[in-house]
Amino acid sequence: MVPSPSPSARTATRPAFARWMGTTNQVTRTFLSAGAIPGLINLGGGLPDPKIFPTGRLAEFARRAVAEHPGEALGYGPIEGLAPLRDAIARRFSSAALPLTRANVLVTTSGMQGLDLIGKVLLDEGGLIAGQFPTYLGALDAWRPRAPSFRNLVLDAPGFDPQEALAGAQFAYAVPNFSNPTGRLVDLATRRALVAAAHRTGTWLVEDDPYGTLHYDGATLPRLIELSAQAAPGEPYAGPVIYMGTLSKEIAPGLRVGWIVAAPEMIEALTLAKQGSDLCTSGVTQRVALAAIETGLVDEIQPALVALYRSRRDALCAALATHLCDWFDWEVPVGGMFVWALARDPALDTDALLPHALAAGICYSPSSVFDATGANRRGMRLNFTLNPPERLDEGMRRLATAVAACRGGRQVA
Amino acid sequence: MVPSPSPSARTATRPAFARWMGTTNQVTRTFLSAGAIPGLINLGGGLPDPKIFPTGRLAEFARRAVAEHPGEALGYGPIEGLAPLRDAIARRFSSAALPLTRANVLVTTSGMQGLDLIGKVLLDEGGLIAGQFPTYLGALDAWRPRAPSFRNLVLDAPGFDPQEALAGAQFAYAVPNFSNPTGRLVDLATRRALVAAAHRTGTWLVEDDPYGTLHYDGATLPRLIELSAQAAPGEPYAGPVIYMGTLSKEIAPGLRVGWIVAAPEMIEALTLAKQGSDLCTSGVTQRVALAAIETGLVDEIQPALVALYRSRRDALCAALATHLCDWFDWEVPVGGMFVWALARDPALDTDALLPHALAAGICYSPSSVFDATGANRRGMRLNFTLNPPERLDEGMRRLATAVAACRGGRQVA
Repeated sequence: MVPSPSPSARTATRPAFARWMGTTNQVTRTFLSAGAIPGLINLGGGLPDPKIFPTGRLAEFARRAVAEHPGEALGYGPIEGLAPLRDAIARRFSSAALPLTRANVLVTTSGMQGLDLIGKVLLDEGGLIAGQFPTYLGALDAWRPRAPSFRNLVLDAPGFDPQEALAGAQFAYAVPNFSNPTGRLVDLATRRALVAAAHRTGTWLVEDDPYGTLHYDGATLPRLIELSAQAAPGEPYAGPVIYMGTLSKEIAPGLRVGWIVAAPEMIEALTLAKQGSDLCTSGVTQRVALAAIETGLVDEIQPALVALYRSRRDALCAALATHLCDWFDWEVPVGGMFVWALARDPALDTDALLPHALAAGICYSPSSVFDATGANRRGMRLNFTLNPPERLDEGMRRLATAVAACRGGRQVA
Repeated sequence: MVPSPSPSARTATRPAFARWMGTTNQVTRTFLSAGAIPGLINLGGGLPDPKIFPTGRLAEFARRAVAEHPGEALGYGPIEGLAPLRDAIARRFSSAALPLTRANVLVTTSGMQGLDLIGKVLLDEGGLIAGQFPTYLGALDAWRPRAPSFRNLVLDAPGFDPQEALAGAQFAYAVPNFSNPTGRLVDLATRRALVAAAHRTGTWLVEDDPYGTLHYDGATLPRLIELSAQAAPGEPYAGPVIYMGTLSKEIAPGLRVGWIVAAPEMIEALTLAKQGSDLCTSGVTQRVALAAIETGLVDEIQPALVALYRSRRDALCAALATHLCDWFDWEVPVGGMFVWALARDPALDTDALLPHALAAGICYSPSSVFDATGANRRGMRLNFTLNPPERLDEGMRRLATAVAACRGGRQVA
């Protein structure tokens, strides 16, 4: 303790914040403050269109949650979640090969809490994570306080060796369905190889699946946990895959209800961690989530939601083609919420471009925030779910203006 | 990575759980599993009586939260919490000396999340906490993953020196109103001394106040944050006190809505931490909380709640006097939810007594769980808010039976 040099007792020097607080990314802060810019077209987040919220039915579910289940809704609930909700989630992800029970299910206060809890139970300070690269920003945020090191897995790189990739990690992390940020679908052969490597090396494998139902073209692929169960089909699940989901993209993020499906020993460990994080998830929101699943509402709204988002994906890709095809390359994603665009010119730095973009009234997520080192500066993630086609087109027009300003600025400087 | 010795790929050895997972307390697990015992009288928790929940009005608030504020209730909200709720909390704790704004307020997903976030922003691995002793179990749970060391502060010990007590700690922690577990009210002189020491040593001072409104006898005392503000009255608050509250005891724990009031720099740090914990608190439950505060419901129900709990405190103390005065000493608490009983015989170990108590159909929280070292074995925390007088009396009768069995068992062995 350094004695205070201050003349005022009130402003004495305080002990520092924890060390990890100094490691956060300036771009993230810029990005978070962008919301205050008037007229901004914000393609930076992963926000659903509020028009899809089934407000009337959810309002009635909320009333009934409290009126008909006051003990569950208003009291302290079990740390693991309400039993009927755990049962409903177990049923939803069960198959002949993968018979799940509530012992396989933890309710989480959002998918983000799931990531935090996984870090809590698996990561020692400085531990190694083998993570699909580029990596979801929120996962980096959740794990940063434990100062992990990252082994970046580029799953579609030539010669990718899953067993070498996973060996020695405290866990592996992947978003197989429409990866955040790239929107890519991990193919079946890679899925099988990842699962086999997790079994062989004995590495926990986190399968983060918030976008699984937002599938626009082509066939769905089996979940990693389903492939893992095929090693001992029909037996109670005890394998290494930790499957994570959420209602945030399927129905409404404001419920903050997600889940983890895993081996019972993992659920027990996560329960102990959740006890010290928030004791239990709100019974009000759990009851609303259960009603949304049990009444079929979640399934009912998917076709309209998929149709809406598919048309917006197409609109964003068309706008990119119109305004930015000289500067960027991109793939049309078969699902999810994002298009990942890479600058053709490696000298175009998307961190440096961001202030020009904000000045032009458009926000995106630069690739640096999806890299634990911040070094990846060539890409950007563009969200297409929140804005209607005309705004997406106007956004890409503004982005083209920003690119011109940024390039012009560099030539002048 | 040790190569798997297993004959089956499916059961390969996995990397270990994080180290702290091995440090949890077996008594806590026993205690958590007690809920399954039929007919058990459970005085182990800190549960409100569900009869006090104003179910009808909260059901209507829940419906209106979604129907009238669908964007806020169902979408992603600001990490810090909804602005009108932050404003309402700022108003509630403001005074002439302590003018608060929303910049001083973070909404948390329960008081427990507040403790977790404080650990996240202030504790490095192995850091020192100066904590009021005995210490709230949930705070130990929240901070255990960072493997802190504890300096135990016995605030009413003769010769207690607050400045020495706080120096060098990453933060100090106290529950001045009806401390969990002891139910004690920290007196005004000690409050002033703690605050002065925090200012002089430059130590963050966490004031955890879930029970402040559950006050049964005598005068209320000023909050630590109010005393801290008197160092620079009327100025925007920038002092070292981090004040925590919750609606769990005042209205309903199932909302999982709490708050932290502190200097803006601390709120910013906690916001960054919350971003990686759950992104934001549910807009549904925040809107219900706001309605409960703004309509005056929270204030309206306090008199009946205080009267009910006061009578139960009296009933528990009377039952202790009837059945256990030969074995235990206790003080009648002036507020809160608990009576703290200490064995007269230092050889009576309340960890060893617990299995006998469960066998007799009564559960309490043994003192070991309120001590980071687990060494404190002479006390027990008894909750009086959940059960009616006749159950409290029957509970103490069962506890006397358990004491006799435990003592008898020791003599026989």
